[in-house]
Amino acid sequence: MTRPAPLPPAARAIVRGDARALARAISAVENGDSSADPILRAIYPRTGKVPVVGLAGPLGVGKSSLVSALVGYLRGQGRSVGVVAVDPSSPFSGGSVLGDRIRLERAPGDERVFFRSMASRGAVGGVAAATREAARLLDAAGFDVVLVETVGSGQVDLAIRQIASTRVVVLVPHLGDEVQTLKAGLFEIADVFCVNKSDLPGAEIAQRDLAELVALGAGHDGWRPPIVATSTVTPSGIDRLWAAVEAHQRFLDSSGVRRTAERLRLKEEIVGRVRDELAAELADRLDRDPELRELLDRVVARTLDPRSAAERLLRSLRGP
Amino acid sequence: MTRPAPLPPAARAIVRGDARALARAISAVENGDSSADPILRAIYPRTGKVPVVGLAGPLGVGKSSLVSALVGYLRGQGRSVGVVAVDPSSPFSGGSVLGDRIRLERAPGDERVFFRSMASRGAVGGVAAATREAARLLDAAGFDVVLVETVGSGQVDLAIRQIASTRVVVLVPHLGDEVQTLKAGLFEIADVFCVNKSDLPGAEIAQRDLAELVALGAGHDGWRPPIVATSTVTPSGIDRLWAAVEAHQRFLDSSGVRRTAERLRLKEEIVGRVRDELAAELADRLDRDPELRELLDRVVARTLDPRSAAERLLRSLRGP
Repeated sequence: MTRPAPLPPAARAIVRGDARALARAISAVENGDSSADPILRAIYPRTGKVPVVGLAGPLGVGKSSLVSALVGYLRGQGRSVGVVAVDPSSPFSGGSVLGDRIRLERAPGDERVFFRSMASRGAVGGVAAATREAARLLDAAGFDVVLVETVGSGQVDLAIRQIASTRVVVLVPHLGDEVQTLKAGLFEIADVFCVNKSDLPGAEIAQRDLAELVALGAGHDGWRPPIVATSTVTPSGIDRLWAAVEAHQRFLDSSGVRRTAERLRLKEEIVGRVRDELAAELADRLDRDPELRELLDRVVARTLDPRSAAERLLRSLRGP
Repeated sequence: MTRPAPLPPAARAIVRGDARALARAISAVENGDSSADPILRAIYPRTGKVPVVGLAGPLGVGKSSLVSALVGYLRGQGRSVGVVAVDPSSPFSGGSVLGDRIRLERAPGDERVFFRSMASRGAVGGVAAATREAARLLDAAGFDVVLVETVGSGQVDLAIRQIASTRVVVLVPHLGDEVQTLKAGLFEIADVFCVNKSDLPGAEIAQRDLAELVALGAGHDGWRPPIVATSTVTPSGIDRLWAAVEAHQRFLDSSGVRRTAERLRLKEEIVGRVRDELAAELADRLDRDPELRELLDRVVARTLDPRSAAERLLRSLRGP
């Protein structure tokens, strides 16, 4: 048995609720700075206790306004909220398109709300892992609820499967073309469907279409995703949206799905870490190890096919 | 030295130009049917000889019409063309949204054109690999040019980096919001920029914006991507688009980049195969091996963090 290590100062500050220390640690995570590793190891035993709620969906459905409305609602109930939002990055700057807006949203006086946006930089695996660690830091910092907002890319959206225990898929009336490509992935992971901008015409139709899709088999683990209509113009439905999230959280406990789902997420995380580490070592060996260079040379020369080369590599990795 | 194995009958039929055998093999690849493996191994030595040109970009920019126009242009030059198009899948059917359209597009009489659409089924890695193998089958079948069209998802688009030697990134005037999320990835891989629907207002502005982005550093390996305006309504620019593709193909040879880029693609393919195989074995061991189950139990119980668990797994994999 290992028992939780004594907390390093930075981790202790985060657990105490020091927003500066929290922001610094998230920045380190975002930049892939290894100084965050000891903090993440140390805080892990203190995580997993609060609901991590993911909001996913295509651009333009109003997820950010929805998050602001949820934050307002939860604050009204006296609950503290930590938010991580994943932004699409601009092509070359690597900067965060929505970052400024989100900083503006951040309630200045209120220390019981923490907003943080992460630039996706097109590195999907990277941003998924960084977002997961940021959510853990917010969890360890003692916020009552952690919200994770992902923007646009179907792959980034799928990343919340590895992060959130309840996933809200946000759509709008008259789903655009690009939703087609997201559907396949998004519908699988939805625990709650939210039809936002329900003040727009066609909202009822969208809800009916969604209800049919749900009847066709959306959802998983014996949970049938409820469909909630919301609007942030004249705020409406936010309370019902949160009630649906809480209903799913209760289901996770009563059904025992919470533990199995958590186990699966952690298993995928561990397998992913080992896989990526091995892949990096392997790519390096293919550059350096003369035998492996020669193997690659033969694939380039078309005298050996990639499948066979991969099989030989596997055998060599497994050793005699 | 291994020398190319004698061709199995199905592979021989494909190399002879039997469209039925080709279609069957691509279906097997699409369905992950292992009956395709011996064919793929056998044809590999006969691949890598023709230009594989990828067209990537968001939905709605008219890539499919562009592909049809390119096919018409190339046929006019007496060249045979094989096309693989990756479709967004519908949520539950797993069916191909654009498949029917593409089958309609397929010139009925003309045996020197082969169209095939693949459903993405949301499994990005899977569709990327299947598309790569389909492109290889078209290559081995002796088509003069292989076109790969990917639709919508930034990740699927990036998959053509592992497939095509020339990548055409297709955009339209007034790039929509969703392009933001694609940019980061798409601009990196572009060898040629195509502003399609150049009959629409704002085309000149879009070209100027693109030119600025290119000046800012798009492109790679010392190649600066040209920007070509096209329209498929009253077809225009198709000849210039193909001229730009051929210019890049000449650059690949004159600069020696073709070999280094091909080597990198094949290296990534081999590493990816080994990585995925090891990850599958590892996930299986985490379910079966009592010691590893206990390791995962401790991560679930929060007495061990995922990083440390991954490190122990790596050590156990490397053995003593």
